[in-house]
Amino acid sequence: MVRNAGGHRGALLRDVGESGLIDLLRRTHGGIPRPGELSIGDDAAVVRVPGGRAVLSTDLLVEGTHFSLGYFRPEEVGGRALSANLSDLAAMGADPVCYLVALAAHPDTPVATVDAIFRGMATAARPSGIRLMGGDTCRGERLTLCLTVVGAVGRGRPVCRAGARPGDLLYVTGSPGWSNLGLALLRGGRPTRASGWRREAMRAHLAPTARWREGQAAARSCAVAAMIDVSDGILADLAHLLERDGLGAVLAEESFPVSRSFRAASAALGIDPLDAFLGSGEDYELLMAVRPSRRARFLRAARSFPAGATPIGAVTKTPGIRVRRADGSWIEGAELPSGFVHFPSRKHRAR
Amino acid sequence: MVRNAGGHRGALLRDVGESGLIDLLRRTHGGIPRPGELSIGDDAAVVRVPGGRAVLSTDLLVEGTHFSLGYFRPEEVGGRALSANLSDLAAMGADPVCYLVALAAHPDTPVATVDAIFRGMATAARPSGIRLMGGDTCRGERLTLCLTVVGAVGRGRPVCRAGARPGDLLYVTGSPGWSNLGLALLRGGRPTRASGWRREAMRAHLAPTARWREGQAAARSCAVAAMIDVSDGILADLAHLLERDGLGAVLAEESFPVSRSFRAASAALGIDPLDAFLGSGEDYELLMAVRPSRRARFLRAARSFPAGATPIGAVTKTPGIRVRRADGSWIEGAELPSGFVHFPSRKHRAR
Repeated sequence: MVRNAGGHRGALLRDVGESGLIDLLRRTHGGIPRPGELSIGDDAAVVRVPGGRAVLSTDLLVEGTHFSLGYFRPEEVGGRALSANLSDLAAMGADPVCYLVALAAHPDTPVATVDAIFRGMATAARPSGIRLMGGDTCRGERLTLCLTVVGAVGRGRPVCRAGARPGDLLYVTGSPGWSNLGLALLRGGRPTRASGWRREAMRAHLAPTARWREGQAAARSCAVAAMIDVSDGILADLAHLLERDGLGAVLAEESFPVSRSFRAASAALGIDPLDAFLGSGEDYELLMAVRPSRRARFLRAARSFPAGATPIGAVTKTPGIRVRRADGSWIEGAELPSGFVHFPSRKHRAR
Repeated sequence: MVRNAGGHRGALLRDVGESGLIDLLRRTHGGIPRPGELSIGDDAAVVRVPGGRAVLSTDLLVEGTHFSLGYFRPEEVGGRALSANLSDLAAMGADPVCYLVALAAHPDTPVATVDAIFRGMATAARPSGIRLMGGDTCRGERLTLCLTVVGAVGRGRPVCRAGARPGDLLYVTGSPGWSNLGLALLRGGRPTRASGWRREAMRAHLAPTARWREGQAAARSCAVAAMIDVSDGILADLAHLLERDGLGAVLAEESFPVSRSFRAASAALGIDPLDAFLGSGEDYELLMAVRPSRRARFLRAARSFPAGATPIGAVTKTPGIRVRRADGSWIEGAELPSGFVHFPSRKHRAR
């Protein structure tokens, strides 16, 4: 583990300069180019894109809006940013290829902080094989990170948001909602030694895992008609998935992957567990619409999902989302919890 | 020309919300996907990369560091950002494919401002055929733009920074230095009606043109051994080009493309014209190392350069850059003007 950023213990960005910083990042975290490729250090990076179709996503993270160094360690800022982007590739069923990082920071920022952010990204990147191949550094008042990820898709892919049909089964990976519980916990101050649900909630918020293995396997199974990651919360992202085809959905609370530990965490934090499960963002689970005729094929693929998959409802011809509560009652429309939005519109805020 | 951002005259980002803004940008400025491609609106964009090798560059622009809305119109911020990125593709000899834009803005930002930034990008993008295919929007205190551009390279390309040899001829496109004169002029307040050198200087700074046609033609001629864009200034970027191979260069002032108008502008602004030509950044001209044996082939290709190309010196085996002044004297080392650097290191600043 490189702790001292190559001997720059205590140094600030203004001490090493822009070229010193880039050299450090390239040596310590730069991806190794394959024949015909170019990594950090030229006017642009060059990467091979198997299949000739690049899948691209970009995400801007601003200190104060997306994270606070008050309760995030720099490694976690980096790891989380990489996972969020990898999740966008996962949601297309794409194979991860490379990432670029643009960073703005104050000249008084310790080199070790920037190094730790990149180390966090590299650690989150490693299992998927995605490599850092380029970027940009500049001055700025607030720490700002812009990640761009590149993936590749073969024939029959990508899996898009559009494509669901009435009757499709809705599956979700893992246990959405934990990230929001983690955020609620952290807002009260970061526990020094967390265990039990506190540990699980913190981990979900600070070090989420992108479901790229699940996304790839789902896409290869050809059983998934539409897919999205639930970074804005299940309801908001389900609505995004359905709106392309003018469809709706019914969800059944009793089938939701909500554990006893999740309920205990919700109770302790004063959050309705249904709100936490359906309405909260920043989870990087995948929501998939599966053709009933291909369910067996999907289930075979899902056996390889590290995070598993749970059926939570079905697509309907009637637009709108309705949830059947465990007590048999129904909620819909404005009664449903809402997801996270930037620039919330007046209409939205008035709800 | 779309002036009212689709009827949002006077509206703020908080009025239209994130999804309203994305819809507007997609409808007004979004690229049209070709078969097998996906544009704005899914988890990620999908683009065809002819040749299977993607050329990638990303650039982060922060209000206050890179531009000021005090003397930049929003269209110019967008156009300049796009040109800067296109210039990175040009410097590799790549064919432009698509761009992504991540934007952070305060919720009180007028929709028309954001629309104008994207319109500026679209206008600068149009001649090259590069298309807006994705992005991200979020809240932030300062207006922040992160552009990522994607290009493609065929066999025999890209042209990199490394590759020069002693004896190679150094050519530069256009007339570097004007951008910095423009900046100096604008710092004294934006003239309402500029003509003559004022107009040329302002235009160079506010609406620079990327040399993608020149970069493509140079790469296709197979006569250019190494290439870089001079966004940090000729000296700084020439040093970047030479350092890969441990080489040096001699430049001859009498050959520099410095016009009478350029000298008049420098004199009026109190800037040494040699400093302006060699040391100033933010020009998006290309610097090329041409093998003497392929000079004729290069000159044939250069006939198609809209900005032309001028020989300014040659690569030497001895490291370091030396400039022969018009009076026959030589300058080198610390006597040379320096380019623009972020996080200037203490060593650098001490010069």
